[in-house]
Amino acid sequence: MKHTISILVENHFGVLARVAGLFSARGFNIESLAVGETEDDTISRMTIIVSGDENILEQVMKQLNKLIDVIKVNEISASSVKRDLLLVKVSSNKNNRKDLMQLVDIFRAKIIDISSGSMVIEITGDEDKILAFLELLTPFGIKEVARTGIIALSRGH
Amino acid sequence: MKHTISILVENHFGVLARVAGLFSARGFNIESLAVGETEDDTISRMTIIVSGDENILEQVMKQLNKLIDVIKVNEISASSVKRDLLLVKVSSNKNNRKDLMQLVDIFRAKIIDISSGSMVIEITGDEDKILAFLELLTPFGIKEVARTGIIALSRGH
Repeated sequence: MKHTISILVENHFGVLARVAGLFSARGFNIESLAVGETEDDTISRMTIIVSGDENILEQVMKQLNKLIDVIKVNEISASSVKRDLLLVKVSSNKNNRKDLMQLVDIFRAKIIDISSGSMVIEITGDEDKILAFLELLTPFGIKEVARTGIIALSRGH
Repeated sequence: MKHTISILVENHFGVLARVAGLFSARGFNIESLAVGETEDDTISRMTIIVSGDENILEQVMKQLNKLIDVIKVNEISASSVKRDLLLVKVSSNKNNRKDLMQLVDIFRAKIIDISSGSMVIEITGDEDKILAFLELLTPFGIKEVARTGIIALSRGH
Protein backbone atom coordinates (compact mmCIF):
# COMPACT_ATOMS: atom_id res chain seq x y z
CA MET A 1 0.00 0.00 0.00
CA LYS A 2 1.16 3.51 -0.76
CA HIS A 3 1.73 5.99 2.04
CA THR A 4 2.22 9.75 1.77
CA ILE A 5 4.44 11.09 4.53
CA SER A 6 4.89 14.79 5.20
CA ILE A 7 7.99 15.82 7.18
CA LEU A 8 8.78 19.32 8.40
CA VAL A 9 12.54 19.75 8.82
CA GLU A 10 14.98 22.47 9.80
CA ASN A 11 16.63 23.63 6.61
CA HIS A 12 20.04 22.28 7.65
CA PHE A 13 22.84 20.71 5.80
CA GLY A 14 22.52 16.94 5.32
CA VAL A 15 18.95 16.48 6.63
CA LEU A 16 17.72 15.25 3.28
CA ALA A 17 20.41 12.57 3.02
CA ARG A 18 19.68 11.40 6.58
CA VAL A 19 15.93 11.16 6.00
CA ALA A 20 16.32 9.38 2.66
CA GLY A 21 18.88 7.07 4.27
CA LEU A 22 16.46 6.07 7.03
CA PHE A 23 13.88 4.90 4.50
CA SER A 24 16.34 3.01 2.34
CA ALA A 25 17.99 1.35 5.37
CA ARG A 26 14.58 -0.16 6.19
CA GLY A 27 13.98 -1.38 2.67
CA PHE A 28 11.51 1.27 1.57
CA ASN A 29 11.80 2.47 -1.97
CA ILE A 30 10.97 6.15 -2.29
CA GLU A 31 8.58 6.45 -5.23
CA SER A 32 8.31 10.18 -5.15
CA LEU A 33 9.99 12.91 -3.15
CA ALA A 34 9.50 16.65 -3.18
CA VAL A 35 11.34 19.12 -0.99
CA GLY A 36 10.62 22.81 -0.84
CA GLU A 37 10.85 25.70 1.55
CA THR A 38 7.77 26.65 3.54
CA GLU A 39 6.52 30.13 4.43
CA ASP A 40 9.45 30.19 6.88
CA ASP A 41 12.65 29.83 4.85
CA THR A 42 14.51 28.11 7.69
CA ILE A 43 12.01 25.23 7.48
CA SER A 44 11.43 22.86 4.57
CA ARG A 45 8.67 20.37 3.99
CA MET A 46 9.49 16.98 2.48
CA THR A 47 6.66 14.99 0.94
CA ILE A 48 7.58 11.35 0.42
CA ILE A 49 5.56 8.56 -1.14
CA VAL A 50 6.63 5.06 -0.19
CA SER A 51 5.03 1.66 -0.41
CA GLY A 52 5.66 -1.07 2.11
CA ASP A 53 4.69 -2.70 5.35
CA GLU A 54 2.60 -0.57 7.73
CA ASN A 55 4.32 -1.77 10.91
CA ILE A 56 7.79 -1.03 9.61
CA LEU A 57 6.59 2.36 8.40
CA GLU A 58 5.43 3.17 11.91
CA GLN A 59 8.92 2.37 13.19
CA VAL A 60 10.51 4.55 10.51
CA MET A 61 8.23 7.44 11.48
CA LYS A 62 9.22 7.05 15.14
CA GLN A 63 12.89 7.12 14.17
CA LEU A 64 12.32 10.18 12.00
CA ASN A 65 10.80 11.95 14.98
CA LYS A 66 14.02 11.35 16.89
CA LEU A 67 16.22 12.99 14.25
CA ILE A 68 17.47 16.29 15.55
CA ASP A 69 16.41 18.42 12.57
CA VAL A 70 12.96 16.89 12.19
CA ILE A 71 10.18 19.09 13.54
CA LYS A 72 7.07 17.10 12.68
CA VAL A 73 6.19 13.89 10.86
CA ASN A 74 2.73 12.87 9.80
CA GLU A 75 1.00 10.62 7.34
CA ILE A 76 -1.32 12.39 4.94
CA SER A 77 -4.77 10.90 4.54
CA ALA A 78 -6.08 9.67 1.21
CA SER A 79 -8.66 12.46 1.13
CA SER A 80 -6.08 15.26 1.03
CA VAL A 81 -5.48 17.49 -1.99
CA LYS A 82 -2.56 16.06 -3.98
CA ARG A 83 -0.76 17.68 -6.88
CA ASP A 84 2.15 16.88 -9.12
CA LEU A 85 3.76 19.11 -11.77
CA LEU A 86 4.98 17.86 -15.14
CA LEU A 87 7.00 19.60 -17.83
CA VAL A 88 7.07 17.74 -21.13
CA LYS A 89 8.80 18.58 -24.40
CA VAL A 90 6.93 17.10 -27.33
CA SER A 91 7.69 17.12 -31.06
CA SER A 92 5.40 19.41 -32.97
CA ASN A 93 5.17 20.95 -36.39
CA LYS A 94 2.65 23.20 -38.07
CA ASN A 95 0.57 20.18 -39.13
CA ASN A 96 -0.09 18.77 -35.68
CA ARG A 97 0.10 21.95 -33.60
CA LYS A 98 -3.69 22.35 -33.59
CA ASP A 99 -4.23 18.82 -32.28
CA LEU A 100 -1.72 19.43 -29.51
CA MET A 101 -3.34 22.74 -28.57
CA GLN A 102 -6.70 20.99 -28.31
CA LEU A 103 -5.28 18.43 -25.84
CA VAL A 104 -3.63 21.23 -23.86
CA ASP A 105 -7.00 22.96 -23.68
CA ILE A 106 -8.95 19.91 -22.57
CA PHE A 107 -6.45 19.12 -19.80
CA ARG A 108 -6.15 22.79 -18.77
CA ALA A 109 -2.42 22.53 -19.35
CA LYS A 110 -0.25 25.44 -20.53
CA ILE A 111 2.19 25.80 -23.43
CA ILE A 112 5.22 27.57 -21.95
CA ASP A 113 7.77 27.37 -24.76
CA ILE A 114 7.59 26.75 -28.47
CA SER A 115 10.16 26.29 -31.23
CA SER A 116 9.87 25.22 -34.87
CA GLY A 117 10.11 21.53 -33.96
CA SER A 118 8.89 21.25 -30.40
CA MET A 119 6.73 22.59 -27.59
CA VAL A 120 7.18 22.57 -23.82
CA ILE A 121 3.90 22.00 -21.96
CA GLU A 122 3.22 22.41 -18.23
CA ILE A 123 0.45 20.46 -16.49
CA THR A 124 -0.54 19.97 -12.85
CA GLY A 125 -2.91 17.45 -11.38
CA ASP A 126 -3.14 14.15 -9.62
CA GLU A 127 -1.18 11.18 -10.87
CA ASP A 128 -3.98 9.72 -13.02
CA LYS A 129 -4.51 12.95 -14.91
CA ILE A 130 -0.80 13.35 -15.60
CA LEU A 131 -0.41 9.77 -16.81
CA ALA A 132 -3.47 10.10 -19.07
CA PHE A 133 -2.04 13.29 -20.58
CA LEU A 134 1.37 11.67 -21.19
CA GLU A 135 -0.31 8.72 -22.88
CA LEU A 136 -2.15 10.99 -25.30
CA LEU A 137 1.07 12.86 -26.10
CA THR A 138 3.05 9.70 -26.85
CA PRO A 139 2.02 9.43 -30.55
CA PHE A 140 3.37 12.96 -31.17
CA GLY A 141 6.81 11.97 -29.87
CA ILE A 142 7.85 12.82 -26.33
CA LYS A 143 11.38 14.24 -26.26
CA GLU A 144 11.93 14.97 -22.59
CA VAL A 145 10.00 14.85 -19.33
CA ALA A 146 10.66 16.43 -15.93
CA ARG A 147 8.31 15.85 -13.05
CA THR A 148 8.21 17.03 -9.47
CA GLY A 149 7.15 14.58 -6.83
CA ILE A 150 3.65 14.78 -5.39
CA ILE A 151 2.87 17.35 -2.70
CA ALA A 152 -0.24 17.29 -0.54
CA LEU A 153 -2.24 19.44 1.87
CA SER A 154 -5.15 18.33 4.05
CA ARG A 155 -8.59 19.68 3.14
CA GLY A 156 -10.53 22.12 5.31
CA HIS A 157 -9.11 22.72 8.79
CA MET B 1 26.26 30.87 -7.28
CA LYS B 2 23.25 28.62 -7.76
CA HIS B 3 23.47 25.60 -10.02
CA THR B 4 20.63 23.48 -11.37
CA ILE B 5 21.69 19.87 -11.88
CA SER B 6 19.58 17.33 -13.72
CA ILE B 7 20.33 13.65 -13.06
CA LEU B 8 18.73 10.70 -14.83
CA VAL B 9 18.82 7.60 -12.62
CA GLU B 10 17.65 4.01 -12.72
CA ASN B 11 14.64 3.78 -10.48
CA HIS B 12 16.43 1.57 -7.96
CA PHE B 13 16.32 1.30 -4.28
CA GLY B 14 18.64 3.67 -2.41
CA VAL B 15 19.81 5.78 -5.37
CA LEU B 16 18.27 8.90 -3.91
CA ALA B 17 20.06 8.52 -0.58
CA ARG B 18 23.38 7.89 -2.37
CA VAL B 19 23.04 10.96 -4.59
CA ALA B 20 21.96 13.21 -1.71
CA GLY B 21 24.81 11.80 0.38
CA LEU B 22 27.39 12.69 -2.28
CA PHE B 23 26.35 16.34 -2.21
CA SER B 24 26.25 16.60 1.55
CA ALA B 25 29.61 14.81 1.94
CA ARG B 26 31.15 17.60 -0.16
CA GLY B 27 29.51 20.35 1.85
CA PHE B 28 26.79 21.31 -0.58
CA ASN B 29 23.45 22.24 0.88
CA ILE B 30 20.59 21.08 -1.34
CA GLU B 31 18.23 24.04 -1.66
CA SER B 32 15.64 22.27 -3.70
CA LEU B 33 15.16 18.72 -4.89
CA ALA B 34 12.48 17.17 -7.04
CA VAL B 35 12.33 13.54 -8.08
CA GLY B 36 9.80 12.10 -10.46
CA GLU B 37 9.44 9.28 -12.94
CA THR B 38 10.09 10.02 -16.60
CA GLU B 39 8.20 8.70 -19.63
CA ASP B 40 9.97 5.40 -18.86
CA ASP B 41 8.89 4.30 -15.38
CA THR B 42 12.17 2.48 -14.71
CA ILE B 43 13.98 5.83 -14.96
CA SER B 44 13.60 8.87 -12.71
CA ARG B 45 14.87 12.39 -13.14
CA MET B 46 16.22 14.26 -10.12
CA THR B 47 16.48 18.03 -10.36
CA ILE B 48 18.72 19.49 -7.68
CA ILE B 49 19.53 23.11 -6.93
CA VAL B 50 22.73 23.69 -4.97
CA SER B 51 24.92 26.67 -4.35
CA GLY B 52 28.65 26.37 -3.88
CA ASP B 53 32.05 26.32 -5.44
CA GLU B 54 32.15 25.58 -9.18
CA ASN B 55 35.30 23.42 -9.03
CA ILE B 56 33.96 21.21 -6.28
CA LEU B 57 30.67 20.92 -8.14
CA GLU B 58 32.55 19.63 -11.17
CA GLN B 59 34.11 16.93 -8.99
CA VAL B 60 30.72 15.99 -7.55
CA MET B 61 29.29 15.67 -11.06
CA LYS B 62 32.19 13.39 -12.06
CA GLN B 63 31.56 11.23 -8.99
CA LEU B 64 27.84 11.13 -9.76
CA ASN B 65 28.64 9.85 -13.24
CA LYS B 66 30.52 6.95 -11.67
CA LEU B 67 27.55 5.81 -9.54
CA ILE B 68 26.16 2.61 -10.95
CA ASP B 69 22.52 3.72 -11.20
CA VAL B 70 23.25 7.14 -12.66
CA ILE B 71 22.56 7.34 -16.39
CA LYS B 72 23.27 10.99 -17.16
CA VAL B 73 24.23 14.13 -15.28
CA ASN B 74 24.09 17.62 -16.68
CA GLU B 75 23.91 21.18 -15.53
CA ILE B 76 20.90 23.09 -16.79
CA SER B 77 21.57 26.50 -18.29
CA ALA B 78 20.06 29.67 -16.90
CA SER B 79 17.93 30.10 -20.04
CA SER B 80 15.97 26.89 -19.50
CA VAL B 81 12.28 26.77 -18.60
CA LYS B 82 11.98 26.40 -14.82
CA ARG B 83 8.84 25.71 -12.83
CA ASP B 84 7.93 25.14 -9.23
CA LEU B 85 4.53 24.15 -7.81
CA LEU B 86 3.08 25.55 -4.61
CA LEU B 87 0.00 24.54 -2.63
CA VAL B 88 -1.00 27.03 0.03
CA LYS B 89 -3.83 26.96 2.54
CA VAL B 90 -4.91 30.46 3.48
CA SER B 91 -7.52 31.72 5.94
CA SER B 92 -10.57 33.11 4.21
CA ASN B 93 -14.08 34.15 5.07
CA LYS B 94 -16.93 35.61 3.06
CA ASN B 95 -15.61 39.14 3.62
CA ASN B 96 -12.17 38.65 2.05
CA ARG B 97 -12.98 35.89 -0.43
CA LYS B 98 -13.36 38.35 -3.30
CA ASP B 99 -9.95 39.90 -2.65
CA LEU B 100 -8.35 36.46 -2.63
CA MET B 101 -10.09 35.47 -5.85
CA GLN B 102 -8.76 38.62 -7.50
CA LEU B 103 -5.18 37.72 -6.55
CA VAL B 104 -5.70 34.16 -7.77
CA ASP B 105 -6.92 35.58 -11.07
CA ILE B 106 -4.01 37.97 -11.55
CA PHE B 107 -1.43 35.27 -10.84
CA ARG B 108 -3.30 32.67 -12.94
CA ALA B 109 -3.43 30.45 -9.88
CA LYS B 110 -6.26 27.99 -9.15
CA ILE B 111 -8.48 27.49 -6.11
CA ILE B 112 -8.59 23.72 -5.59
CA ASP B 113 -10.37 23.39 -2.24
CA ILE B 114 -12.55 25.62 -0.13
CA SER B 115 -14.10 25.36 3.33
CA SER B 116 -15.90 27.90 5.51
CA GLY B 117 -12.63 29.15 7.01
CA SER B 118 -9.94 28.43 4.44
CA MET B 119 -8.98 27.91 0.83
CA VAL B 120 -6.31 25.79 -0.83
CA ILE B 121 -4.68 27.50 -3.81
CA GLU B 122 -2.38 25.99 -6.44
CA ILE B 123 0.16 28.10 -8.35
CA THR B 124 3.03 27.28 -10.70
CA GLY B 125 5.79 29.55 -11.90
CA ASP B 126 9.36 30.53 -11.38
CA GLU B 127 10.64 31.26 -7.91
CA ASP B 128 10.08 35.05 -8.08
CA LYS B 129 6.43 34.67 -9.02
CA ILE B 130 5.78 32.17 -6.25
CA LEU B 131 7.48 34.32 -3.61
CA ALA B 132 5.57 37.41 -4.75
CA PHE B 133 2.29 35.50 -4.50
CA LEU B 134 3.11 34.22 -1.00
CA GLU B 135 3.96 37.74 0.13
CA LEU B 136 0.59 39.05 -1.02
CA LEU B 137 -1.21 36.20 0.76
CA THR B 138 0.57 36.77 4.08
CA PRO B 139 -1.86 39.43 5.41
CA PHE B 140 -4.77 36.97 4.96
CA GLY B 141 -3.06 34.40 7.19
CA ILE B 142 -1.12 31.51 5.67
CA LYS B 143 -1.97 28.25 7.45
CA GLU B 144 0.11 25.71 5.56
CA VAL B 145 2.42 25.55 2.57
CA ALA B 146 3.71 22.64 0.50
CA ARG B 147 6.09 23.22 -2.35
CA THR B 148 7.77 20.94 -4.86
CA GLY B 149 11.33 21.66 -5.78
CA ILE B 150 12.09 23.33 -9.09
CA ILE B 151 12.14 21.29 -12.29
CA ALA B 152 13.59 22.45 -15.58
CA LEU B 153 13.71 21.63 -19.28
CA SER B 154 15.94 23.22 -21.91
CA ARG B 155 14.23 25.40 -24.49
CA GLY B 156 13.93 24.46 -28.17
CA HIS B 157 16.03 21.49 -29.29
